[in-house]
Amino acid sequence: MGVAGPIRIEDSADSRIAGFVSIRERDLTGREGRFIAEGTVVLRMLAAAHRSGRGIAAEAILLLESRVAGLASLLAEFPPEVPVYMADARVFDAIAGFNMHRGVLALGRFDQMPGRDALIANLPTCSLVLAACGISNHDNMGSLFRNAAAFGVDAVLMDQTTCDPMYRKAIRVSVGSVLTLPFAREGTAADLIERLQAGGFAIWGLSPRGETDVGEIAPAPRTALLVGTEGEGLPQTILSAVRTARIRQRPGLDSLNVAMAAGIALHQVARVNGRI
Amino acid sequence: MGVAGPIRIEDSADSRIAGFVSIRERDLTGREGRFIAEGTVVLRMLAAAHRSGRGIAAEAILLLESRVAGLASLLAEFPPEVPVYMADARVFDAIAGFNMHRGVLALGRFDQMPGRDALIANLPTCSLVLAACGISNHDNMGSLFRNAAAFGVDAVLMDQTTCDPMYRKAIRVSVGSVLTLPFAREGTAADLIERLQAGGFAIWGLSPRGETDVGEIAPAPRTALLVGTEGEGLPQTILSAVRTARIRQRPGLDSLNVAMAAGIALHQVARVNGRI
Repeated sequence: MGVAGPIRIEDSADSRIAGFVSIRERDLTGREGRFIAEGTVVLRMLAAAHRSGRGIAAEAILLLESRVAGLASLLAEFPPEVPVYMADARVFDAIAGFNMHRGVLALGRFDQMPGRDALIANLPTCSLVLAACGISNHDNMGSLFRNAAAFGVDAVLMDQTTCDPMYRKAIRVSVGSVLTLPFAREGTAADLIERLQAGGFAIWGLSPRGETDVGEIAPAPRTALLVGTEGEGLPQTILSAVRTARIRQRPGLDSLNVAMAAGIALHQVARVNGRI
Repeated sequence: MGVAGPIRIEDSADSRIAGFVSIRERDLTGREGRFIAEGTVVLRMLAAAHRSGRGIAAEAILLLESRVAGLASLLAEFPPEVPVYMADARVFDAIAGFNMHRGVLALGRFDQMPGRDALIANLPTCSLVLAACGISNHDNMGSLFRNAAAFGVDAVLMDQTTCDPMYRKAIRVSVGSVLTLPFAREGTAADLIERLQAGGFAIWGLSPRGETDVGEIAPAPRTALLVGTEGEGLPQTILSAVRTARIRQRPGLDSLNVAMAAGIALHQVARVNGRI
């Protein structure tokens, strides 16, 4: 941010903030390699991601003018070439088109992120991976990343049918972990399993019909926890290709939410492997 | 449902379905001892609650006509005096005022539910309680109930500042567990702790600053897990009155979501006490 401080925007049609216009609808349709970060915590994670050189960069920041003073130290974490704009509430809402942002928005860009095979090839000797197939709900996606970060996952690997974690709501629910945790989303579930097996991973598919209690998953230098779609879970073809684990629960109820189940399992695996 | 099958509603102003009008807005304001159940799974839990005589009853069911045939066996679980209405999509949406209901709605009534002290007095010798203070988000509330049901909690006890679990969205996220799991919401957190202590409960307050790892919580005939508000967690005054437990996680991140933390802790406590 230049020495003059944030640039005041008086008109929602100002071309300098065109990237922020109607973000609610726009991120549902096209992507253009851009994403939206909302809120202070996510902005802090974006600053960390920007500095890490992982292929994620902040393009611009837009603040409600009443938020500027309180965010000075956070803004200083961004390089000076990232423009910071501010607007009053009327102009701000006219730009963004909704008011869930708490007055803190950033536009980001991602490029040159390593693909799945490159990520796997670069994982440390001792590593923990979360693998996800067919996740379709952005809340669950965000929650999976938040848990993955909390329990020391090295990478999140998704099949091509899984929804995009760079979607605004997923980033928000992840409290920004999507921006800092390496991930890849490509190929089929079968491909992903094959690559993980070739990489020496013990792969545990999580299912209510799993054979091993999650509390009995043995420590291993490389463990991958695999979760499936919200409704049906992992298909039998996948479950028969990997080891399977279950979370015991009372009978007669819907199985746990996928992010909840992953959180419980990751916590167990992280504990037995001394990762937390 | 009478032998003639569901009653067709042709007009959204029909007085017989007045209870379903604009439910989205209405449950935000007044309650009148009524609640809305949405979706097939919740409807099934409502049928179970109705039969259990716990003070929860179905008053009426409203279905999109295309859903009627597939729900015949579920409708048969309700007593014949519960009216079943059906409407086409246009009339249905005009009644309900939004379209998140998947064409399955029920209006319920609750009364004569036992209070906190009566619930505690009637808990079995070996029991597990989830206690919650200051929860303000209905998604978290629903998720707490869903986890409590999954891990065999006997009752959910909340202080008076906690939000209402009978709110439509909380019931939906709980996949209906709010309707089947005994709960009470009254009094202060300090009162609640005192009553649980008098009842011989080992009370564990969950906090990132907790002393004992959740995996080390000792088995006990009666255990209460206590969780606090989404933002601040449990206040120090409460934490110093109980034993405290933490979920280990990587440093430098936001603490886990409250429902996630409760799920992980309940899973551990349920396992060591042989409840699942």
